[in-house]
Order: sequence, then C-alpha cells, then structure tokens
Amino acid sequence: MSSWVEWFAEQRAGREDAGLQRALRPRAADEDVIDLANNDYLGLSLHPAVRRAAADAALCWGAGAGASRLVTGTTSLHVDLERELAEFTGREAALVFSTGYQANLSAVTALADKQSLIVSDAHVHASLIDAARLTRAAIEVVPHNDVAAVRKALAAAGDRRALVLTESVFSVLGDAAPLPDLAEVCADHDALLVVDEAHGLGVVGDGGRGALHGTSEHPNVVMTATLSKSLGAMGGAVLGSAALVDHLVNRARPFIFDTGLAPAPTAAALTALRCLRRQPALPLRIHQRGAELADRLGVRRSAGAVLSVPMPSPQVAVAAQAAALEAGVRVGCFRPPSVPDGVSRLRVTARAGLADARWEHAVEALARVVKDHRRWP
Amino acid sequence: MSSWVEWFAEQRAGREDAGLQRALRPRAADEDVIDLANNDYLGLSLHPAVRRAAADAALCWGAGAGASRLVTGTTSLHVDLERELAEFTGREAALVFSTGYQANLSAVTALADKQSLIVSDAHVHASLIDAARLTRAAIEVVPHNDVAAVRKALAAAGDRRALVLTESVFSVLGDAAPLPDLAEVCADHDALLVVDEAHGLGVVGDGGRGALHGTSEHPNVVMTATLSKSLGAMGGAVLGSAALVDHLVNRARPFIFDTGLAPAPTAAALTALRCLRRQPALPLRIHQRGAELADRLGVRRSAGAVLSVPMPSPQVAVAAQAAALEAGVRVGCFRPPSVPDGVSRLRVTARAGLADARWEHAVEALARVVKDHRRWP
Ligand SMILES: Cc1ncc(COP(=O)(O)O)c(C=O)c1O
Ligand SMILES: Cc1ncc(COP(=O)(O)O)c(C=O)c1O
Repeated sequence: MSSWVEWFAEQRAGREDAGLQRALRPRAADEDVIDLANNDYLGLSLHPAVRRAAADAALCWGAGAGASRLVTGTTSLHVDLERELAEFTGREAALVFSTGYQANLSAVTALADKQSLIVSDAHVHASLIDAARLTRAAIEVVPHNDVAAVRKALAAAGDRRALVLTESVFSVLGDAAPLPDLAEVCADHDALLVVDEAHGLGVVGDGGRGALHGTSEHPNVVMTATLSKSLGAMGGAVLGSAALVDHLVNRARPFIFDTGLAPAPTAAALTALRCLRRQPALPLRIHQRGAELADRLGVRRSAGAVLSVPMPSPQVAVAAQAAALEAGVRVGCFRPPSVPDGVSRLRVTARAGLADARWEHAVEALARVVKDHRRWP
Repeated sequence: MSSWVEWFAEQRAGREDAGLQRALRPRAADEDVIDLANNDYLGLSLHPAVRRAAADAALCWGAGAGASRLVTGTTSLHVDLERELAEFTGREAALVFSTGYQANLSAVTALADKQSLIVSDAHVHASLIDAARLTRAAIEVVPHNDVAAVRKALAAAGDRRALVLTESVFSVLGDAAPLPDLAEVCADHDALLVVDEAHGLGVVGDGGRGALHGTSEHPNVVMTATLSKSLGAMGGAVLGSAALVDHLVNRARPFIFDTGLAPAPTAAALTALRCLRRQPALPLRIHQRGAELADRLGVRRSAGAVLSVPMPSPQVAVAAQAAALEAGVRVGCFRPPSVPDGVSRLRVTARAGLADARWEHAVEALARVVKDHRRWP
C-alpha cells in the first residue's frame, strides 16, 4: 500500500474542512453567460480579425512552433510581434515567451543569483515569487506599495546586485504601484526595477501602452507582460534594452528550454495589438465602466480593470459567485491561497468589449448579489 | 551610469570568448528546408486535420482561454483532451498545462517540499531541475541511469517523502531510462517516480503510448508529457491517479496562477492524438529511419527520435550546422549549457512525416557534412 494514496486523501480532507477544495468547471462554447471573471478586458480574444489571424496562422505555419525559440521555433510572426510590442510600449526591444508565468521566471532568474538581493512587494504574483525563490538570492519582502521600505532594503544591499519586483496594476486587488517613486529609488541605488504589466498593458497609460509608458527609458527598468489578458491570446513578454533581451535569449532557462509560443496565439496577439493601436480610446471604456461598477457595488475604484469585492468568508464568497452565475454573470472567486491578504473576495473585471445592454444587465445583477451576500449570514 | 549596462556587456563578452553567444534566427513560412531540428517527429503539426482543428477552435472559442483554468479558462476542449490523453496512455486521469515546462514545475513542486528528498538523474531536463530547486527539498543528483545509486539514495531517505525524477527518452542524448527497475526501487521504498515522457509519448510504447504504457498502473508513478513535440502543438500534461490530478488542481502554483492553454493548441493536440490512434504504426517509422540515419552517421542508435552526434568543439558544431543548412537540412546544435555532459553536438531528429525522397536527401546530405566535420580541423 502506497503512503501517497493516504497523503493525497489527507491533503484533500484538510482542504475540505477549510472550505478551500476546488474543482474545474468546464464551460461550453455556446454558453449564454456574461463573463466578468476572465481577463479579456478589451474583448479582443473574440474580435473577428483576431480569431481570423489565429486561424490563418495555424493553417499557414502549422499547430506548433516545433522546437525552442533558439533551435527552430522562431518564426517571422514572433519577430513581428516582438518589434511591434517594443514600439508600442516605447521600449528598445521585446522577447516573447510561451506564458506570462515563464516571462517572469525568465526575467528574474536571468538577472539575479545567489549573490543578489531581491526586494519584493508583498502582493506580487505567484510567478514572481517562484522566480525569486529559484534564484536563491536573499529575498526581502516589503509591505505592499511601501517605497520607504524599498529604499531601506536597498540601502542595505552593499555591493550585491539588487532587483525590485512589483506590478503596475495588481492582479487581485486592482490597485497601482507608485512607479515613479520606485523608479527613482532604484536609480539612486543602481537597482533594477522589474514591473509586471500583466494587468497594465492594454489598460493603463496612453492608449493602453502600460504604466511605464512615457517614463524615460531608464536602463534599470524591465517590463514584463502577458499576451493572455488584454491582448486576448496566450504568452508573455519581457521588454527593455536590446542588451537585456540578448541576455535573456542566452541565459533564461525557461526561454531556452521551452518550445516557442505556437503560431496561432502569436498571430492573435499581434493582430490584437494592431486592433488596440487603431482604437486608442478603447481602454478608457474599461475605466468608465469600472468606476460605474465600483460605485454600484460600494467598493474601491480600481487602477485598472480588476475590481475586488471582499467577502466575509470563503463560503459566502462561493455562495455569492454561484448566485451571480444563476443570474447569468460569471465572476471570479478568490480564496486563500490565491489572495495576497488572506481575505476571500469576488474578483470582477470591467469589460470594454461588451455591448451596453449586456454590461448594464451585469451591473444590476451583481449589485443585487453583492447586497444580498455582504449582510449574510 | 547604470552598472547593469556594463554587466550585460561583460556577460556577453564572456559568452563570445567561449564561443557560446547565441542569437535567434527567424524562419519564413515558405522556406525550403528539411527541418530535422524540430521535435515534430510525426509531422502532425502540419497534418491538414490538425491545422484545421486549430483554426476552427480559434474561430469558435476565440484566441485565448481568457483566465486560469480554475477561474474560467477550462473549456470542454480541455476536458476532452484530458480524457483522451488518459485513455491513450492508460492512466486514470490527466491534467493539461500551458507548457511542458510548467507541467514539470507543477508536478514536482506540488508533491515535494522542504521536508522531502528528491533523487534526480544527472541528465534530466532544465524544467525538472528548476522544479526540484523550487521545492527547497534536499536534492541528490545521481549518475545517469544508475539504479543502484537511486536505491542507495532512497535507503537514506528515512521518513522523508521521496521523489525520483527521470525521463523515458532523454532529450539530448536520446537514450532510455531503465524504467522497470526504477519503478521497482521506488515501490520498495514508497517513493514517487516522476517520468517525463516529453520524448516518449507518440514515439515509444505500443502505438506511441509512451514507455510507461503496459506497466501496471502503480499509484507511485507520475507521468509528465508535452503536447509540443510528437503531438505538434504546444502545452504539457501530467498523468496519473485522479487523486494526483485533484491535488495538482488545488496545489500546483504554475497551474493555478497561469492562463489556460489557448483553444487552438488544445484542439490541435486533441486532433493530433486522434490521428496517432488511427495510425498505430506511424511511430515505427521513426525507429526505422532513426536506425538508418544513426548507422549512416556512425553514431549510437536512439531509443526514440533524437540522434546525438558529438562534435569536437562548439565551433565545429556550429560550422557543421551551417554546412547542413547550406545543403538544405536544418539540424540542432547543442552547446553548453544545453548539454548534460558538456559535449557540443548536433542533434538530429528522425521524422516519420517526411516523404521518402526528402528523407533520403537529408540522410545523404548529413552523412557528407558529418564526415567532413568530424575529422576537422
Ligand atoms: C500579475 C500577473 N503576472 C503574470 C501572470 C501570468 O501570466 P500568464 O497567465 O500569461 O502565464 C498573471 C496571470 O496569470 C498575472 O496576473
Ligand atoms: C524532456 C523535456 N521536458 C520538458 C520540456 C518542456 O516542454 P515544453 O517545450 O512543451 O514546455 C522539454 C522540451 O522543451 C523536454 O525536452
């Protein structure tokens, strides 16, 4: 008898007792639900030109990249996407990865090692946390958005190379990092500032160019992003100097030892980016709708598309999510360990792509559900 | 002035001095090259039904999954693929990931922690090495394919939970692991055997079912795989008991915090798998051609599709690769740090999908190139 069978059962029982057991719930292609749980903020995943580009790429190039990017997995599509992402965000160069997760793993592990110091905001994404752990650097976790704490940590760096990790718009709470202040502190201490713009690209900055756009292109700033959220596809990117990209191509293990992003999502992200450039006002709609929804729900407005609706317990959060779905609206339900502060919540995204009537229906439905569940039990 | 600018320059100079600087070389859609560098062993990436399935999925479902698998990124395509992968390989359940890299990170990090012991073959893939590091477990690297060393390491595990990491067909050298012996040792010590079948699925075992197929489904065996090689798409999978999959869904960070695999590659992998089921003799062609090519090149035959052709130096390996391309054949060139033993080599894959005339042309061209370069300078 294997002790592993027992161990799996024990682990599951523990999750069930804590109300934290989760299961996958597949959706059908023809479901009639307004989905405010996903991160397709601009609706570009379903844009006809984007779908068509993905389909054409699969027909023309085949279903996969075939090998890692350095071996033979780099197509002209990848190069076009990298050039246009760099242009759009105002960076010198870009490198595309098969996931945003691996973009973060790559950026951090190729830039830091055992001798380095990593100063990490307490709320950064799991991929940045894993990345920091992988480097074996000394890690100092500082309170959320606390610039003075970052300054203090960097002052103690001595001659270690130092990295500061943050997000431009945080993925669960939807608040923003004080980027200009962090950039200044990093420049003062010659530290590298790594900013994950997963929820910033396509959402904030001039025409959706991200929160870093317009800051002078300081060599100490590294931007990471995903192609899986506002660009509606999948994949990730790291943006910065050409020297940075050359370094990653040669040293980032989750880049070197990973099959390239498939042609379909590569072409989809490229076409989505072009759609966004042609509609520079599209991201504004996210903010208008987000503000409207936040006010109706009585929660804090978001710096981006993500609204956080705290709930009294994991169980109530799950019940509220079910009630919303019953009313035709899907929202996210985040419970430990997926929340930075231990507070269970609904996570609702403001969506530029939805028709007015559907958006209004969703707002009304959610207002009712939230009202019912915040005073329960 | 940023010291990082200097650091990038120094690092690059070091690579150049060692002959190890690498750059991306994009390929065009219409290039006329026989590609023996990629891992599309069965030619399924370009199979008309596979391309069509990828295109249709993008048109029907959109370009991306929209969110992580637990939030709203699980479509009925993912579920179908998971069911059919499990059936095909004879496992109880499967879970699909956005990359093979993240499948390995997930399997290992969700099963081991600081208190565990990980016994790793010296030649395992970077993703398994990174996975092991991330767990913070005690790591014992044992000589390649040395079962006695694994037994000895496990005997010293005490009451720590122990994992043994290996590949069924190794990715660079193309040799096979002694799986029955390893499975026995693991069962004896109640250790979990994690077998990466990235280069085994679609290549070895009955009809391409992988090296583990036909072994009794011991609860202590975990199979990982990629959808990016013989299945021609992108993504990864972990296969084993339903309890294992439930555990990963709830605990594997690179699964929970990552956008789901996009619809196009998901549908492509599913259709590729169905193509493979309908043509159970297809993998045999890999072995026939691989044996023929190995004999012509005077190198060791492979357990799978990967032939390793050792070269006297990194520089000669690069020159041989260029000469092959000149002759219309692309091969891989693996140099440190991408080789487990420090020996630079050409990496050539045997391909079932190619027409006879093209395959024969490639064999002749490579035989000439290898002859010229192994005696040089
Ligand atoms: C802040 C942040 N960074 C990185 C990622 C990972 O990106 P991807 O899902 O494209 O792997 C995510 C979400 O999944 C995220 O929210
Ligand atoms: C043995 C092995 N495992 C895992 C991977 C990672 O798979 P993927 O490229 O699908 O991320 C690869 C190759 O890339 C591999 O060769």
